Amino acid sequence: MASKTLISLDAMGGDHGPSVVVPGIKAYRARFGGEQVHFHLHGDEALIRAEMDKHGLTDADCTIFHTDKVVAMDEKPAQAMRRGKGSSMWNAIEAVKTGAAQAVVSAGNTGALMAISKLQLRMAATGLERPAIVASWPTLRGTTAVLDVGANIGSDAKQLVEFAIMGEAFQSAVHGIEKPTVGVLNVGSEEMKGHDEVREAHAMLRSGHLPINYYGFVEGDDIAKGTVDVIVTDGFTGNIALKTAEGTARFIGTLLKDALKSGLQSKIGALIAMPALKKMSRKIDPSTVNGGPLLGLNGLVVKSHGGATAEGFGNAIRVAVDLARSDYLSKVGTNLARMAEMADMGAKTDGGVDE
Amino acid sequence: MASKTLISLDAMGGDHGPSVVVPGIKAYRARFGGEQVHFHLHGDEALIRAEMDKHGLTDADCTIFHTDKVVAMDEKPAQAMRRGKGSSMWNAIEAVKTGAAQAVVSAGNTGALMAISKLQLRMAATGLERPAIVASWPTLRGTTAVLDVGANIGSDAKQLVEFAIMGEAFQSAVHGIEKPTVGVLNVGSEEMKGHDEVREAHAMLRSGHLPINYYGFVEGDDIAKGTVDVIVTDGFTGNIALKTAEGTARFIGTLLKDALKSGLQSKIGALIAMPALKKMSRKIDPSTVNGGPLLGLNGLVVKSHGGATAEGFGNAIRVAVDLARSDYLSKVGTNLARMAEMADMGAKTDGGVDE
Repeated sequence: MASKTLISLDAMGGDHGPSVVVPGIKAYRARFGGEQVHFHLHGDEALIRAEMDKHGLTDADCTIFHTDKVVAMDEKPAQAMRRGKGSSMWNAIEAVKTGAAQAVVSAGNTGALMAISKLQLRMAATGLERPAIVASWPTLRGTTAVLDVGANIGSDAKQLVEFAIMGEAFQSAVHGIEKPTVGVLNVGSEEMKGHDEVREAHAMLRSGHLPINYYGFVEGDDIAKGTVDVIVTDGFTGNIALKTAEGTARFIGTLLKDALKSGLQSKIGALIAMPALKKMSRKIDPSTVNGGPLLGLNGLVVKSHGGATAEGFGNAIRVAVDLARSDYLSKVGTNLARMAEMADMGAKTDGGVDE
Repeated sequence: MASKTLISLDAMGGDHGPSVVVPGIKAYRARFGGEQVHFHLHGDEALIRAEMDKHGLTDADCTIFHTDKVVAMDEKPAQAMRRGKGSSMWNAIEAVKTGAAQAVVSAGNTGALMAISKLQLRMAATGLERPAIVASWPTLRGTTAVLDVGANIGSDAKQLVEFAIMGEAFQSAVHGIEKPTVGVLNVGSEEMKGHDEVREAHAMLRSGHLPINYYGFVEGDDIAKGTVDVIVTDGFTGNIALKTAEGTARFIGTLLKDALKSGLQSKIGALIAMPALKKMSRKIDPSTVNGGPLLGLNGLVVKSHGGATAEGFGNAIRVAVDLARSDYLSKVGTNLARMAEMADMGAKTDGGVDE
């Protein structure tokens, strides 16, 4: 690669600010190489410089853009939009808008990040209220991208197809899957194949007018099975599915811990099996899947968990770099345009609804 | 109790017919007593009689109503409605309609059971396309009733309130919870508190016109936490949440098994901890929560899993007996009437939407 990839970081975002963001760069490099990435760090210069020194990073690796202003983790989005100008988050996003950076990563306040990103970068997809959030869901076969998991409440058929376009490009850019399979989340029983929105999206995706490897309807238990690479659903259902799964995992974890502490014999067994149990829990550890892009914007914005570790933040950087180096934005642009044509031609309704 | 409770059983339903249904009676008696229950067994007399003899049940315990006809497990609901007349399932439900029995249990084909129940018993609640299915969800605090988990696709605010009324009466009748708390499933973030249907249902439940212990909105992870006793949601979201949770549990179970088989040391540890692990898995074993009533009908119909064991079927009998002996139907009737009045008075909109 001739020129370096430029990534803009909100150095003050998240629960730990520069003390996670800066070592996050180190963690990224240690794990993924990445000498060919230059970072723009937005935030308090003195704090950032101290962390850079501590971790052996120099001006050859990072450029600091000083600002005193920070968007608080509990600030309301409307407030952040009004008062956030000049903050580390604002400036980091603005760098993508002006072209100074190719992507931005922030571990800051999600609502503020969505609002400021939308205000500065504008939506690329039609009809989206705000950027779609994609969850990288660990499955028996790897990782499935599920979207939207909470940004938009109702989603009509067209929006579901937009999610399919964006999720497909994301999986191929970030996880290197050649022709990701896409499914629409629905209920299972014969007599009731879901509401109009999912049936219409199904017909559009099945029509073959879009270059998408469409699998068909999938059900809730197909998510963890890894039946497809991308699952699209409205933000209401997606959010509830994600939180239900998190709750179930925590419930089983609690039962398991209680069982393994329930007597001397169990404690001994648990102690002996511990290395294997630890290895297993790492598989579903959030830090290994940290880094959720906000999809549907004219620009690349990646959200890191606020409480992510340096290793987790490093993974979010990887997601941003992979997206920036891929043809994600142009591919999505082409497919969204093709979809708009398709809707104009009335292709939307041609196949009718599946039998 | 002076007179016996009469329960009608579809003896031919399920994957195993009389060879599970009849010992299911024994399992029910062994676990819950129940000398005060008399059973009507609908199906093939010779097969049923053989099972009764085998398990020491006499005509004092059961009356056989012979029929040769059976609804197949894969029969389509429309077909079952046309051709099912005189079948064991049909006759077992008809016994509830004529008053010969107080409740019916069937492990037969769910779609057929819903269709024939609706045809014979009619819906008690307005606007329901078909009976609501309630899932008894194991949680950290016991069991939460979640409905609807798949019978109705879209649910308007009024239907969600009907689910609240039915689920509340179910929890108090079957699990003996005095004033069950009720929550409406919604998404979490501040800016978007769900769509109109959930907000309107929230306003109706919060208004205090119904004698319901309303908690407010809950999120997906509140299900397994056991935050409330009853959670209402539309059948689309409920079905996806239920199957997502089942998929997650299976996924973690697979990871756990793989981890515990991953080497000699883990295998030894697993062997030692096995009694505790087995005890834990029984807690989430479906047979201990088997027996899902179809709510919203003028009569009590309980669905058992098709593949249930005798012990599981015994639990479904318990659900039917508890409902039959409780004031479930009259309580639901009163509250549905009160709700209809409330809607007439325009109370539906008085509180507006939550801040």
